[in-house]
Amino acid sequence: MSDQRFIPQDPNFAEKTRASFAQQGFMQYLGALMTLIEPGRCEIRVPFRPELSQQHGYFHAGVSGAIADSASGYAAYTLMPADSNVLTVEYKLNLVAPALGELLIARGQVIRAGRTLTICRADVHVVRDGAEKICATSLSTIMALAPNPTNR
Amino acid sequence: MSDQRFIPQDPNFAEKTRASFAQQGFMQYLGALMTLIEPGRCEIRVPFRPELSQQHGYFHAGVSGAIADSASGYAAYTLMPADSNVLTVEYKLNLVAPALGELLIARGQVIRAGRTLTICRADVHVVRDGAEKICATSLSTIMALAPNPTNR
Amino acid sequence: MSDQRFIPQDPNFAEKTRASFAQQGFMQYLGALMTLIEPGRCEIRVPFRPELSQQHGYFHAGVSGAIADSASGYAAYTLMPADSNVLTVEYKLNLVAPALGELLIARGQVIRAGRTLTICRADVHVVRDGAEKICATSLSTIMALAPNPTNR
Amino acid sequence: MSDQRFIPQDPNFAEKTRASFAQQGFMQYLGALMTLIEPGRCEIRVPFRPELSQQHGYFHAGVSGAIADSASGYAAYTLMPADSNVLTVEYKLNLVAPALGELLIARGQVIRAGRTLTICRADVHVVRDGAEKICATSLSTIMALAPNPTNR
Repeated sequence: MSDQRFIPQDPNFAEKTRASFAQQGFMQYLGALMTLIEPGRCEIRVPFRPELSQQHGYFHAGVSGAIADSASGYAAYTLMPADSNVLTVEYKLNLVAPALGELLIARGQVIRAGRTLTICRADVHVVRDGAEKICATSLSTIMALAPNPTNR
Repeated sequence: MSDQRFIPQDPNFAEKTRASFAQQGFMQYLGALMTLIEPGRCEIRVPFRPELSQQHGYFHAGVSGAIADSASGYAAYTLMPADSNVLTVEYKLNLVAPALGELLIARGQVIRAGRTLTICRADVHVVRDGAEKICATSLSTIMALAPNPTNR
Repeated sequence: MSDQRFIPQDPNFAEKTRASFAQQGFMQYLGALMTLIEPGRCEIRVPFRPELSQQHGYFHAGVSGAIADSASGYAAYTLMPADSNVLTVEYKLNLVAPALGELLIARGQVIRAGRTLTICRADVHVVRDGAEKICATSLSTIMALAPNPTNR
Repeated sequence: MSDQRFIPQDPNFAEKTRASFAQQGFMQYLGALMTLIEPGRCEIRVPFRPELSQQHGYFHAGVSGAIADSASGYAAYTLMPADSNVLTVEYKLNLVAPALGELLIARGQVIRAGRTLTICRADVHVVRDGAEKICATSLSTIMALAPNPTNR
């Protein structure tokens, strides 16, 4: 799925990624946890609550999109230089099955890391009665920004 | 932008759409308001709160995605038969500028309505110091489902 | 990557898929060959010619998109009933590296097959001096249509 | 649809864009013509031929994708500095109606132009018996590259 070996430029990649995640008010508000961070990979989990539902009681597609986006962005961020910022350029999400269950898990991975742009994939699984099933899949473009972004 | 005239099949399209929106726990949790509902169009607004931010204090891309998705889905839903359900098949979101401001507005519109699938576009604007600026744009596929969905 | 076992409903899935491919004037015009067809999988190859280039002499992104689309559509088609037609609803293509080389290979696979919609992924590799490298990746939605399509 | 005024940095934007288009072997092979080039806008037309068809005799989705991509890329290119190159990062195409007819027209326009990335939209119309109908719509990300690209 990938042609690249992922060797982080920043030895503190895990620490900086966790610190950035902790600053995302939205991830905390969703009750999201970063449960894995490795070079080129990131996993985010969200337990179900009625506050995260759509009209049929499933997880709202916006929750799947939000954690797929963060998992992808942080997978990319692990490979960026220490002083750069991370920004999502775009993402696409296919909702392949109803997200009905007690837990949502997004697993992001880098497909190709470039100096400016990194392409990521994320699969979202829903866990129902302990069984995991794919419910969404995404493809996204992530950008590395110099510390003081003025334009892109 | 569209070749079709949008004449709702369900005369109670506005009522059923507002009722479905009110059942989306996630939209309420975001503090989202449905501020316009017309045949083939829907607008959703979310005032800023720190709980909706990413690591730089802007609206999280997941919030833009969530309201773009709901605005598109409900724009499509206005044109569906009275007894059908609405489901997002996929959406793509391009984040064209940082979402920094006091209010986020998603405006969804139907590009083409089919019996099973409806294609929608949504633009997301951020309002800062009263000035509105585009910050994201999306393209999505919405599906009409019979009342008792078993498969798609 | 997938939660489903793919058992074709139509025992003649390979034959019908090759027959449909042979009717695509555009695939022939590109010089494309269907080099693998299995339940839920399809591979298409195109040798380089200057007629397929963009302004820098690489394969044009439109060629990558076209064979990614056909590989995905036919991967989905292998799992559809004998009398149904196949139609692409949408696809997204990320171009992850310049497509410079002597051969382009698209490999499509079904992520999830539904009664009406099937979600597919396709990776496109370019072969240069015999070495294969990923140059594009796509995510698409494919629709099964009854023999006499009137609407979607 | 756009918040920006488009003032080209390169006074020879039309000339350089036409010159680049003329170098795309694939556009010539498709029989594509660039029929309009303005700051932030580009139109490309392709007359039907059986060589451009899918299995039902419509234009192949790959043709729609290819001209939507080129129309978007060149719309973006009109606004780039004289010495930069243009590269598609990604595009998404929704096929909203069968592309059955005698002519395909893609109209690309810039939604937002940045220093590095430009976001474009393209609508594809098919002309049948002289009547124009939307058949596809796309959203894409285009990158400006310095003359000697080494990485992205």
